[in-house]
Amino acid sequence: MSLDCLIEKICELQNPTVVGLDPKLDFIPDFIKKRAFEKFGENLEGAAEAIFEFNKCLIDAIFDIVPAVKPQTAYYELYGHAGVAALFNTQKYACEKGLYVITDGKRNDIGTTMEAYAFAHLGKIKIGDKSFNPFISDSLTVNGYLGTDGIAPLLKIAKEHDKSIFVLLKTSNPSSGELQDLKLENGATVYEHMGKMCAEWGKELPGKYGFSGVGAVVGATYPDQIAKLRNMLPGTFFLIPGYGAQGGKAKDIAAAFFRNGLGGIVNSSRAIMCAYQNEGCDESDFAGAARREVIRMREELRSVCAPISVQI
Amino acid sequence: MSLDCLIEKICELQNPTVVGLDPKLDFIPDFIKKRAFEKFGENLEGAAEAIFEFNKCLIDAIFDIVPAVKPQTAYYELYGHAGVAALFNTQKYACEKGLYVITDGKRNDIGTTMEAYAFAHLGKIKIGDKSFNPFISDSLTVNGYLGTDGIAPLLKIAKEHDKSIFVLLKTSNPSSGELQDLKLENGATVYEHMGKMCAEWGKELPGKYGFSGVGAVVGATYPDQIAKLRNMLPGTFFLIPGYGAQGGKAKDIAAAFFRNGLGGIVNSSRAIMCAYQNEGCDESDFAGAARREVIRMREELRSVCAPISVQI
Repeated sequence: MSLDCLIEKICELQNPTVVGLDPKLDFIPDFIKKRAFEKFGENLEGAAEAIFEFNKCLIDAIFDIVPAVKPQTAYYELYGHAGVAALFNTQKYACEKGLYVITDGKRNDIGTTMEAYAFAHLGKIKIGDKSFNPFISDSLTVNGYLGTDGIAPLLKIAKEHDKSIFVLLKTSNPSSGELQDLKLENGATVYEHMGKMCAEWGKELPGKYGFSGVGAVVGATYPDQIAKLRNMLPGTFFLIPGYGAQGGKAKDIAAAFFRNGLGGIVNSSRAIMCAYQNEGCDESDFAGAARREVIRMREELRSVCAPISVQI
Repeated sequence: MSLDCLIEKICELQNPTVVGLDPKLDFIPDFIKKRAFEKFGENLEGAAEAIFEFNKCLIDAIFDIVPAVKPQTAYYELYGHAGVAALFNTQKYACEKGLYVITDGKRNDIGTTMEAYAFAHLGKIKIGDKSFNPFISDSLTVNGYLGTDGIAPLLKIAKEHDKSIFVLLKTSNPSSGELQDLKLENGATVYEHMGKMCAEWGKELPGKYGFSGVGAVVGATYPDQIAKLRNMLPGTFFLIPGYGAQGGKAKDIAAAFFRNGLGGIVNSSRAIMCAYQNEGCDESDFAGAARREVIRMREELRSVCAPISVQI
């Protein structure tokens, strides 16, 4: 699914939200874990089964009101290859439900190796006469520290398969400025320079609504930088983490959006996955609580961005 | 295994080589693929079996003459979760053979997520009353673009488990300078600044031979930068990719080593894995060819660095 399709889904649902699927075992209701452990044992396989069941219920609860999900690879690798199989199953299920899937892997490497990541996450791999999907995503987050060589293979494979990437510019964490905010000789910051590279790479993946298939990760926790980058990169779609549990508020991200309500998609993970804990409702209602939080977030986002339309 | 143990193994074998295990299917002899496909089918599972068999034979051929192996995660993710299971099996086998295992994942994320990567790759995960190893490594390569938050969880878990990390400074690829070589206002380059952060993080993981558990990735393809960084970072051990197939020569990396022959470990992947293709010998002798290439490389490295000793 292309970034254009994501934009169309955002318009249709009037909701620029992506639900982060970062299923730590602590976040999962006991009844799901119990069932999974009874079936597979209290081990990595049991944990992986619990993760997948949890994700499936969350997806069922929200797929008709959000356009996208973002599984974070770390929380699957945490349960070994069984966990990674749960990542694949989650991606597949989300895809079948019509959701746009952003795999948050922040992958980065030299050209030949990045090509392997590109085939793995955005393309297919040929074995004998048949092709297989190692993983299933519409988009992959990447780190551009290695420059163009580390991005070019992704662009080629993304173009062939109608996929996209999001490059880290200004991340949401407290220490992101240690490197990203440093001023270069020419007066630009490191994250601004990365932004310029993003815009350049984006020329390879033009989109019909003015945004290229090379998006950028810009943290909700840095409103001034969002505004600056939005101004500097009009053709770059933003993936905005840091909303909710990390402290970013709706007003902080308002500058990401143009007058037609387009410009980015806002991630929330813990606040949605753990809504039942925050609400204090019975754990059996975790999916309902997640849906209520998604609706609350949607209304909050609507209050700061214009009705969303592909019209300029 | 700590970085100190790696250093002791390097001294014992008089060989600062790490063998990169990046098993693309094209690199694997047909007879191994045929056997694997007959057993599991010509699919991701069959490919994963072929990878593991290939790696096992390579490890058997070299474990007594090299101190370390470096599986690159991309080439396992390329075959989906079956491939990732082959990564785990490879790590486990290498570890049983006494090799130091560097998982080349270049992982990076915000603190809470990096903690999940740290548990996954350097620690253990508790499920119920038992602890499990999601993966098995002595060291993980990481990208420091997110600053201290994205490194701190690794330091904590590395300390608890006697593990280490290697942070990307100056990578071996042609475009690495696009960001890494940029000059900051204070006259330092981005990679030098990252180097200073590395040295700072290293204070958390002191080692008994003068090198901290926070190493740095510095490409063999950039000899001047190796010399500069060696001078600037006397307590930082280097992981040096780019030797061999990527064009780095032994003389290019000489500056990485101190007068006692210590200072870094040099990676070669394709030149070793594909030695049988380069030699033109029968594919049944691929492991022998790999061993011959490792010996050739060892002699070449010995010609540019002093006899290796922990004495200063």
